[in-house]
Amino acid sequence: MNSASTFKYGHFDDATREYVITRPDTPLPWLNYLGQDEFFGLCTNTAGGYSFWKDAKLRRLTRYRYNNVPYDLGGRYFYVNDGGEVWNPGWKPVKAKGVKYECRHGLGYTRIVGERDGLEVETLFFVPPGENLEVWKVTVRNKSAQRKTPKLFSYQEFCFFEALNDMTNYQRTYSIGEVEVEGSAIYHKTEFRERRNHYTLFACTRPIAGFDTSRDAFVGIHEGLHEAKVPFAGQATNSVAFGWNPIGSHQIDLDLAPGAEESFAFVLAYVEQGDAPKFDAPFVMNKSVGRAIVEKYSAPGAVDAALASLKAYWDALLGNFQVDCPNEHAQRMANTWNQYQCMATFNMSRSASMYETGIGRGMGFRDSNQDLLGFVHMIPSRARERILDIAATQLSDGTCYHQYQPLTKKGNADIGGDFYDDHLWLVLSTCAYIKESGDTSILQAPCAYADKAYENVITDTLLDHLETSIAYTMKKRGPNGLPLIGHADWNDCLNLNCFSTEPNESFQTAGDVRDSKAESVMIAGLFLYAAREMAGLYEHLDRNSDAARMRGHYAEMLDTVERVTWDGAWYTRAYAADGSVVGSHTNTEGKIFIESQGWCVLGGAGANNGRARQAMESVHRHLYTKNGVVLQQPAYSTYDKALGEVTSYPPGVKENAGIFSHNNTWIHLAWCQLGEGDRALEYYLSICPSAKQDQIDTYRGEPYVYAQMIAGKDAPCFGEAKNNWLTGTAAWTFVVVSQGLLGIKPDYAGLRIDPCIPKDWPGFKVTRRFRGDTFEITVSNPQHVSKGIKAVRVDGKDIDPTQAIRPAGDGRTHQVEVVLGE
Amino acid sequence: MNSASTFKYGHFDDATREYVITRPDTPLPWLNYLGQDEFFGLCTNTAGGYSFWKDAKLRRLTRYRYNNVPYDLGGRYFYVNDGGEVWNPGWKPVKAKGVKYECRHGLGYTRIVGERDGLEVETLFFVPPGENLEVWKVTVRNKSAQRKTPKLFSYQEFCFFEALNDMTNYQRTYSIGEVEVEGSAIYHKTEFRERRNHYTLFACTRPIAGFDTSRDAFVGIHEGLHEAKVPFAGQATNSVAFGWNPIGSHQIDLDLAPGAEESFAFVLAYVEQGDAPKFDAPFVMNKSVGRAIVEKYSAPGAVDAALASLKAYWDALLGNFQVDCPNEHAQRMANTWNQYQCMATFNMSRSASMYETGIGRGMGFRDSNQDLLGFVHMIPSRARERILDIAATQLSDGTCYHQYQPLTKKGNADIGGDFYDDHLWLVLSTCAYIKESGDTSILQAPCAYADKAYENVITDTLLDHLETSIAYTMKKRGPNGLPLIGHADWNDCLNLNCFSTEPNESFQTAGDVRDSKAESVMIAGLFLYAAREMAGLYEHLDRNSDAARMRGHYAEMLDTVERVTWDGAWYTRAYAADGSVVGSHTNTEGKIFIESQGWCVLGGAGANNGRARQAMESVHRHLYTKNGVVLQQPAYSTYDKALGEVTSYPPGVKENAGIFSHNNTWIHLAWCQLGEGDRALEYYLSICPSAKQDQIDTYRGEPYVYAQMIAGKDAPCFGEAKNNWLTGTAAWTFVVVSQGLLGIKPDYAGLRIDPCIPKDWPGFKVTRRFRGDTFEITVSNPQHVSKGIKAVRVDGKDIDPTQAIRPAGDGRTHQVEVVLGE
Repeated sequence: MNSASTFKYGHFDDATREYVITRPDTPLPWLNYLGQDEFFGLCTNTAGGYSFWKDAKLRRLTRYRYNNVPYDLGGRYFYVNDGGEVWNPGWKPVKAKGVKYECRHGLGYTRIVGERDGLEVETLFFVPPGENLEVWKVTVRNKSAQRKTPKLFSYQEFCFFEALNDMTNYQRTYSIGEVEVEGSAIYHKTEFRERRNHYTLFACTRPIAGFDTSRDAFVGIHEGLHEAKVPFAGQATNSVAFGWNPIGSHQIDLDLAPGAEESFAFVLAYVEQGDAPKFDAPFVMNKSVGRAIVEKYSAPGAVDAALASLKAYWDALLGNFQVDCPNEHAQRMANTWNQYQCMATFNMSRSASMYETGIGRGMGFRDSNQDLLGFVHMIPSRARERILDIAATQLSDGTCYHQYQPLTKKGNADIGGDFYDDHLWLVLSTCAYIKESGDTSILQAPCAYADKAYENVITDTLLDHLETSIAYTMKKRGPNGLPLIGHADWNDCLNLNCFSTEPNESFQTAGDVRDSKAESVMIAGLFLYAAREMAGLYEHLDRNSDAARMRGHYAEMLDTVERVTWDGAWYTRAYAADGSVVGSHTNTEGKIFIESQGWCVLGGAGANNGRARQAMESVHRHLYTKNGVVLQQPAYSTYDKALGEVTSYPPGVKENAGIFSHNNTWIHLAWCQLGEGDRALEYYLSICPSAKQDQIDTYRGEPYVYAQMIAGKDAPCFGEAKNNWLTGTAAWTFVVVSQGLLGIKPDYAGLRIDPCIPKDWPGFKVTRRFRGDTFEITVSNPQHVSKGIKAVRVDGKDIDPTQAIRPAGDGRTHQVEVVLGE
Repeated sequence: MNSASTFKYGHFDDATREYVITRPDTPLPWLNYLGQDEFFGLCTNTAGGYSFWKDAKLRRLTRYRYNNVPYDLGGRYFYVNDGGEVWNPGWKPVKAKGVKYECRHGLGYTRIVGERDGLEVETLFFVPPGENLEVWKVTVRNKSAQRKTPKLFSYQEFCFFEALNDMTNYQRTYSIGEVEVEGSAIYHKTEFRERRNHYTLFACTRPIAGFDTSRDAFVGIHEGLHEAKVPFAGQATNSVAFGWNPIGSHQIDLDLAPGAEESFAFVLAYVEQGDAPKFDAPFVMNKSVGRAIVEKYSAPGAVDAALASLKAYWDALLGNFQVDCPNEHAQRMANTWNQYQCMATFNMSRSASMYETGIGRGMGFRDSNQDLLGFVHMIPSRARERILDIAATQLSDGTCYHQYQPLTKKGNADIGGDFYDDHLWLVLSTCAYIKESGDTSILQAPCAYADKAYENVITDTLLDHLETSIAYTMKKRGPNGLPLIGHADWNDCLNLNCFSTEPNESFQTAGDVRDSKAESVMIAGLFLYAAREMAGLYEHLDRNSDAARMRGHYAEMLDTVERVTWDGAWYTRAYAADGSVVGSHTNTEGKIFIESQGWCVLGGAGANNGRARQAMESVHRHLYTKNGVVLQQPAYSTYDKALGEVTSYPPGVKENAGIFSHNNTWIHLAWCQLGEGDRALEYYLSICPSAKQDQIDTYRGEPYVYAQMIAGKDAPCFGEAKNNWLTGTAAWTFVVVSQGLLGIKPDYAGLRIDPCIPKDWPGFKVTRRFRGDTFEITVSNPQHVSKGIKAVRVDGKDIDPTQAIRPAGDGRTHQVEVVLGE
């Protein structure tokens, strides 16, 4: 392995697991997340972003204006006034000339260091594990030869918790803002007088020289953040906000001899009052809970201990899977960034990123089930809890709420259900959980249907939900015997029952799906996969008649798929409400789609008749590009109300022939299934952000996380990434690399090893923690094959290579040697 | 009358009907509206704001970020690059030093002139009457002694029409932006490919030297508007937006000899394609409709003619009512600004201002009925149409949708109905319309109920709606015989059926009003007023038995009010769900409320038993301040879920003892009813913005329009105005001044004259157009009384002073001489 190269805007530091950004003017703001449990923050490379507790819509703590000008403005700001010159360590908002800058996005923290005129200010933002707060550690160093007396001003703006209301209802919100200040602590207590039993605390761990809580006082009325009045004046006004816009700002006056430095910290906390009395006196809140937090982090060493605990947390998590292999991109992503991104998608679903505003969507049924696939090996217990939460938003008839709000765990009635793939993903997540953990007890866990949640005694189990899901697809089939599509399948934009002509209505919810005949080939493929999973699960449970029943469903659907959907060189995509085919050579546009090729092949179609390979070769011929596989071809040039949103996008973006990374992974896995390791890696690298650094001004997105979408060849901006971070791509690429390429596959019985690698790889090593044991796996490839196991040796003993490696359960490290070959 | 004084930020120019702002850094952004028919723009004194067609939520044309930092950023910007120095005539966004600035907010237009280094740039923004477009006229003058070759760059950002989606759904919106450029015209055509049949045109009437349509190209990624790349570089990039954020910018290169000037214009238009084919060729839109617009405004003189037409439009409208009286504030407001504000509230309801984001609320049932009271004398035909639109959102059981969307005219299901005052306001608006116009035919106009709108034949009439409204209140009464309150009455925040403890739910919609016993005294008073109006209407129609029936309802309710609600020195406010009283001396907080005093007295309660005067004196003692009458006293210090949102506000703001200007007007009218002209004027001036100029740094709001709320004496910011422009105060203050103080009262039979003025007024003159005739009314007050008519003379002939002046219907001007006295 070579060490990482330096590119235009930065480079990976693999040793520290950081991405190092060396200039602030990145092609777009480059984001990191703080937090791993229930308190989260978004933090860009110029310290932009915001924080929330659990739910980005209902418990937003600080404000952020999306798509502002500039895009990224507002966040965790420090203004330095050094002898009258004002600048920020993170460059923004003042963007003073001559600031030496470095940003390191690490795992759960961001460190930004600025230096100007011999004064260095290091800022570090993180959420300690298990805490509902952020720590902002600041270290100021006088690297000059003169004494310096800089003043430092913290700044962030409070949000009034309900983020949509906060940005739309000013006739109320401009009149309700309230704060209290005690010592170095600012308490944002808007609505605490009434129905809230929580508040936001923003405190400094050292004495302050002043404070501000009124934005008008600190920034001004006509001033921008880049010219905020107080830091340029060099003096806080001790303003106490009443209405309008409360902010938090502390003034710190420092006196540093040459070479001296000082460290201190700020705490931004979500505080629930619990049973404590709300008020000490009229209008004076009881601050005991908040005070204890300030005390805790004011203790010497507390902040550094919290940071050490965060680092230990991530070391332990990532230790569950580490690889040493010949491809630096695959290795770096799998070892660090992909797993890290999987934590983000697990926690955020599609709610809060630079593209998702935190108020549009909660947790997705389909999304969260898939996100689990890349997360379950890290913390199986959280995956278990999530599976049961998700399942509880399924209705007893088999349909599912498409989204639910993380704070309330209630289904979102606005969007409702009737996306006829949703329920099947629950089978995949549940089986993945059991394969990882061995815990079949989850199947008997009580789990109510959403429409029966009011019942006192829950008699339904998770297994009932899985059976309901399989039965639902078998029941909801159309004239060709294929599953009905409902509002849409995985491709949210293929809306075959929508027929929308009204510009302000949602493509997803506008149509009436009752009595619809539109069918999805992709759901058929997904069903094949799910039914086979269920059969395997029942076999594992020694319930052979149930397994046979599932195999029967499988056979019936497979027969339908092969009989109906083969178009000559690929599988069709769908059948519209009028029965016409979608994704066929007989169409003039949208002749071939990616999703049905992926899922039919992964579901086992075409395995015995050559069609699987033929379908994949068609993908290669018609859809593959150096920036990934486009969703379909040819792109739609005009809107077709019978097809819905997919035809609404300009050609080359999003579902209209954009490169939708998520579905690319199914093709990667299909190539692995076909034994084509070289192609699988080539395809993987085509969407791998780490491999995009040399074309970064085209790609624009973060080089350390996968993007939802890359503009396709029909777009003028071919290769430009959008919607980085929150995408199902994260979970699936981890499956691709860990299970597809490297072939480390959890199974009910144990760990299976079945790599599919480029032929020129001499081998690789993986450390995998699995059900408490640690496996140090060395794979060698003396014959330079892609696939095929010649020998497996565990702790020096040969075992049958077709069998899974059963964990000893001794919590120890075991050596596994695998030899590939024929 | 003295001419207007000059105050800190500006002054009235009464002759030109303009407010002249002489420095840009006003205490808050000071707003004006463009547009009078269906196309509207918001325009601040630094050219901030946005534009929409008909509906600020569903057809927003340009973007605006509310509550940004600074508050007001983004709008109709011009960047001047004069030899490398960049500045804006409206100061923002560059805020260059040394720009000489003047802004004139006029009727339907805003003119901003900036001058720097001998170059003057005058910008003028307006919407020509009857057009769906804005004109931006620019005049550049070289006042220096040197030749100048300035470059001018226009700038605004396009909105994707659905304003909420535009600010929340970036995973879609960042991928759909599309434009075309042809000559000097920029066509914003996002979603035109699919379901939209309209687009936004932004064109210059002269040749351009370049253009930009990509925000990233024009502004940059990390740049703010104050440092946009293109104007500082001095060269457009001719960027064509694909996705992200389309903007419109034209580059104009000028060459001006000393003393030379050049004028040209821009057109920002909402264009519906109609039946024209959408495309000339694949991806090339048919621009014929847009081209015709550009041609029209490129013709010599077209822009000036449009402006002249706007001025003539307002001259004609305001000519319906003009007064010459001893109080400059009352006169200026009544003659110009109050009527102008009434047009805004008629058009906007509470949808789009600096406080209302255009996406929260559409047209309010209660609001729009009241807004008509100040608008009906200007354009009775539009009032007629509005009344029928509003009535059609009433359900056949008598309840009303509380709000409806102006584009669709459909009731808003999110908020629903069950505000048990809504229906009664329809009686007031209808009667006001008939009194103004004499048009009783509206009563028989077909008008479906919202729940019967699907029926082919509409058999219900507007009169049926009025009867349903009266019957509904008679039916929906509680244990005391008083009207039930539902979710709330006029005071949206008095929520007696809400009992909310969940912070994220709406106080207005959370509660269940079925089986509720909570009653409103304010609705009882309003009912008295409405029932008396209905009786008068039936008398006018010679339907005496119906009139008697209404008088019976009146008597029954009056008896209840007097029997139940008199608290000893004032009327109580309400009876809570548990039967306890609200607004009584027996309460510890909220002992006396303003609304029930106003409406009981206006409805005729206390007229014969001294209670009316006693109630008003209690208002004076407990609620009156120099900044207006506070809503109740003492302010609530803690949240009471049995009272709802009113107790949620910090003391002194909004409904919790703030000065809610709207309800102040009912007190003004009550004083007039009691003959107290001095007190009526004193109270009126306490909330009159024109009278706030000498305390403007406290007041902060626009001195030319009424504010919804002024902070009360319990607030630290006593006297600070909020929510200027869109408030029912506008309509009601016009009623106060024109009908209450000046006593020019339309009635079914004709015009009644019944002033109530300060005793020291020697008289006043009013010109009133009424049903086609013009009355020049001269009132003299030789005995220095407040009230009482001694003689009325019309065209030289004495008439019975107790009778209305019947219009001759000859379209001529008639002289009316009125002598006050005993």
